[in-house]
Amino acid sequence: MFTYQHRVQFYETDLMGIVHHGNYLRLFEEARVAWAVEKKLLSYDKESASHFAVLETHVRHVKPAVFGDLLEIELQTKIEKLRIIFEYKMYAQSRGRELVATATTVHVALDSNLKVMRPLEEVKKVMEGEKWIETWL
Amino acid sequence: MFTYQHRVQFYETDLMGIVHHGNYLRLFEEARVAWAVEKKLLSYDKESASHFAVLETHVRHVKPAVFGDLLEIELQTKIEKLRIIFEYKMYAQSRGRELVATATTVHVALDSNLKVMRPLEEVKKVMEGEKWIETWL
Amino acid sequence: MFTYQHRVQFYETDLMGIVHHGNYLRLFEEARVAWAVEKKLLSYDKESASHFAVLETHVRHVKPAVFGDLLEIELQTKIEKLRIIFEYKMYAQSRGRELVATATTVHVALDSNLKVMRPLEEVKKVMEGEKWIETWL
Amino acid sequence: MFTYQHRVQFYETDLMGIVHHGNYLRLFEEARVAWAVEKKLLSYDKESASHFAVLETHVRHVKPAVFGDLLEIELQTKIEKLRIIFEYKMYAQSRGRELVATATTVHVALDSNLKVMRPLEEVKKVMEGEKWIETWL
Repeated sequence: MFTYQHRVQFYETDLMGIVHHGNYLRLFEEARVAWAVEKKLLSYDKESASHFAVLETHVRHVKPAVFGDLLEIELQTKIEKLRIIFEYKMYAQSRGRELVATATTVHVALDSNLKVMRPLEEVKKVMEGEKWIETWL
Repeated sequence: MFTYQHRVQFYETDLMGIVHHGNYLRLFEEARVAWAVEKKLLSYDKESASHFAVLETHVRHVKPAVFGDLLEIELQTKIEKLRIIFEYKMYAQSRGRELVATATTVHVALDSNLKVMRPLEEVKKVMEGEKWIETWL
Repeated sequence: MFTYQHRVQFYETDLMGIVHHGNYLRLFEEARVAWAVEKKLLSYDKESASHFAVLETHVRHVKPAVFGDLLEIELQTKIEKLRIIFEYKMYAQSRGRELVATATTVHVALDSNLKVMRPLEEVKKVMEGEKWIETWL
Repeated sequence: MFTYQHRVQFYETDLMGIVHHGNYLRLFEEARVAWAVEKKLLSYDKESASHFAVLETHVRHVKPAVFGDLLEIELQTKIEKLRIIFEYKMYAQSRGRELVATATTVHVALDSNLKVMRPLEEVKKVMEGEKWIETWL
């Protein structure tokens, strides 16, 4: 299971004292990018041949995240025709691994002209090695 | 129909040249807050008696928004027991009113101790005057 | 005197209940862009021939800005050889026009290859019509 | 010398393909907070007795930072009466340790009523152990 950690910063909180709900999608993206780098689908050093555009995002908030929380994000992913689907679970590692949020994001691959393309062979190959648990969320 | 306008700024775009998907929830919040102020449920000048916590967000992206776009957001809202539901349509007013995104956010009212409470009478009263179109999104 | 108004949003505050200091540069940029659009140096509709890169920023905080504040930003600008200099005063219009912050930003024009260029004639022409008060900040 | 590392994310870039200048202050804050935690002046787990308000920020940009950069921030700090001063150097660790930016931020300690207070004894004690190089920036 791929996991990613993020320490909550002051600038991610709002006047309610909690992480602003708009910032969760940033944290899920951090996890997705780190996953893609680990799978060599994306590099921090050079431009990649394709980008994953965001079609849809769905976040369910369970508990607030607060300043200083060490958040741990687990993700799973699969392809459905042209669509690449990610599911996420976010835990507050620093508070007894309490579930903070779950989410789904749906993507398509874009070529360098920003046209929708079939996922590259290298993407499909990586996906074949990924586990997907239907009842995960 | 309540509408809200927002001009896209440089800092809302990312290296793809489009508004980063994480920023849409900020724009829907701007619209929701402006609606609540117009309905006198919230004031820009003083603390309000209750807050709407965010339970769930769901955004569907149709077309990218870009720097300089004048975005227009329409919203509708209803109460279902403890849940307050908003739906949004976002258009690029500056590009032939092209549909950019649709979204749903689900909220509950919190008291000053951040406990879930029944929506205040004033909230219910406002909601009775709101129209909800079932087939809107 | 060019002025620009911005209503403070929830997502711009942090857990201290005030606008996060990192967000002030965004508001000064909003004002700078609105000024450039008014002077026809920049358009919200099409790509501009040159960009102003940021060399230096300097912000002095006087009073905190809070959620709901209607901020008013005044700016003045001048050219010094290759450098384009802006100074800003930010007031809380909604709280007796209290001074919130002052700032300076220094820029250079970049061509489409991101190389430093002399400010375009149209920029120089606009600047000749601008007033600069030496003792402003 | 205290150092802090930050990996540049998509959401920190803008349409110019570089980190938006408004985001640098967030990264310097991350470094400052990590330093304060290491020195036990701040905890990620509980509220601290004092906060450092931001009086002034000054950033000088040398080279752009881009997506994927592993940024390394060095900082030094000293007290001058009520003022706590930090200086920062930011390098692109991933690109031959190229200097990206330098910065200064000036702070005062606030008590729980947000009144300016003398820096706590524990802060002064930590500061006595810090090195300050006058010619650093």
